[in-house]
Amino acid sequence: MRIRLDVAYDGTDFHGWATQPGLRTVQGELSDALATALRVDAVVLTCAGRTDTGVHARGQVVHLDVDERSVVTSAGRSSEPPLVALARRLNGIVGTDVRVRRVIEAPAGFDARFSALWRRYAYRIADRPGTVDPLTRSHVLVWSRELDLDLMNRAAEDLLGAHDFASFCRRREGATTIRTLQHLVWGRDEDGLAVASVRADAFCHNMVRSVVGCLLAIGDGRQAVGWAADLLAAQERDGAVTVAHPHGLTLEEVAYPPEAELGARVEITRNRRVHA
Amino acid sequence: MRIRLDVAYDGTDFHGWATQPGLRTVQGELSDALATALRVDAVVLTCAGRTDTGVHARGQVVHLDVDERSVVTSAGRSSEPPLVALARRLNGIVGTDVRVRRVIEAPAGFDARFSALWRRYAYRIADRPGTVDPLTRSHVLVWSRELDLDLMNRAAEDLLGAHDFASFCRRREGATTIRTLQHLVWGRDEDGLAVASVRADAFCHNMVRSVVGCLLAIGDGRQAVGWAADLLAAQERDGAVTVAHPHGLTLEEVAYPPEAELGARVEITRNRRVHA
Repeated sequence: MRIRLDVAYDGTDFHGWATQPGLRTVQGELSDALATALRVDAVVLTCAGRTDTGVHARGQVVHLDVDERSVVTSAGRSSEPPLVALARRLNGIVGTDVRVRRVIEAPAGFDARFSALWRRYAYRIADRPGTVDPLTRSHVLVWSRELDLDLMNRAAEDLLGAHDFASFCRRREGATTIRTLQHLVWGRDEDGLAVASVRADAFCHNMVRSVVGCLLAIGDGRQAVGWAADLLAAQERDGAVTVAHPHGLTLEEVAYPPEAELGARVEITRNRRVHA
Repeated sequence: MRIRLDVAYDGTDFHGWATQPGLRTVQGELSDALATALRVDAVVLTCAGRTDTGVHARGQVVHLDVDERSVVTSAGRSSEPPLVALARRLNGIVGTDVRVRRVIEAPAGFDARFSALWRRYAYRIADRPGTVDPLTRSHVLVWSRELDLDLMNRAAEDLLGAHDFASFCRRREGATTIRTLQHLVWGRDEDGLAVASVRADAFCHNMVRSVVGCLLAIGDGRQAVGWAADLLAAQERDGAVTVAHPHGLTLEEVAYPPEAELGARVEITRNRRVHA
């Protein structure tokens, strides 16, 4: 039986998603809690977006395979459905900086990573003095100069579409850096924050934060609007691009195709990542 | 010279607004920072709303009287206006859980406490499982049952207007508990949270949290809609009313009359508080 967890976390006190020996990670915290709740030795978790140290999530999606009997047993005498009871149990075990929002049985063919159609991140910045809010300081970057969002949006348009994002990624041996950036728009939210909404089929390592770092230099006048396109064309990392701080970044949403198309989607994604 | 500070803080790690020996308070932290920045021995701060331990503020207003020369001296060689430089300086001294959003010269007759026309607080609750967000856990109460906001709004209507709120206040010797509750409405924000917007000329101690505690009991079915009106009429504290947790409460805004009416407002308020 494959189950899907929808998970939110404050990344401040985590060394990112992926388990690392001796460090507190979201995967480690969730794995331990699941092993405890299900009374098994270990579980293997797969997530949609492996967030870095300090990056947050509201819409992380995780899958794991479990023995159905262990789910029923773990629910004990609870009057709730076993997976609702499991979610409640997990939230009683993990820290309050992680919340399991939902646990459901995954449809056949579902894979949290390879079935995903796209990931959407938000990057939040308080660039006007009156908008700095201590209550949201964990996930909003403070910027001391006001940003020109029009310039940033013009530069962002040059990055849309399928490209080799090598200039904005930390390279990984044998992996492609070709991605399709579907949406990248800056706007003001109701509190006056500058918020980027960034959507792609997938992101390579450091990609969102490097793109934001590039656009910040354009938005506060240190670089011309055409700089983003120039960097992209170079297909090589440029030391002038700063990787924006992790704490402004939140994984907001992951989208999946309708149930009937899940299996086909996995095949497409796997082939692209390996052969592209 | 009287100056006005607009201040926001995360109340989590403060023992409330008011200075207490040996404890970290917002007044203490701000007073020390002002004394350091202005190179004076001590300052006397007056605020619009003395928040309790754990209560937050986005729109706290504070005044103090200073020697104009010390403001100019403190700005040093800064090219900014002296009060802008002072705000920046203060934010470099206090913890990141307090932000001074603005420092301006107060108009003649201004008093942060006695000039205020009204105070507005918000109380935020995540009462649906999908709305619990680790990123806002510092200032949103988690409630395990979904609340009926219609019932809570019907009960709230019975509390509007000028009343003796003795049933909802911690009594203070010689002080009236008559207040005018101008506005109290529950709604859902864009994230699905239940949010109360509560406005009064002023609040007595524990009043907002006691009223919220009363309405919570109505919203989740433990008490009938008429209970709020019954409590109010009794004019006596009832042990059945729980004072809601402080961390869901935020002082959002304080309103003042136009400059020409400031002095008159102070007289009205002082007389009412003493003689009513």
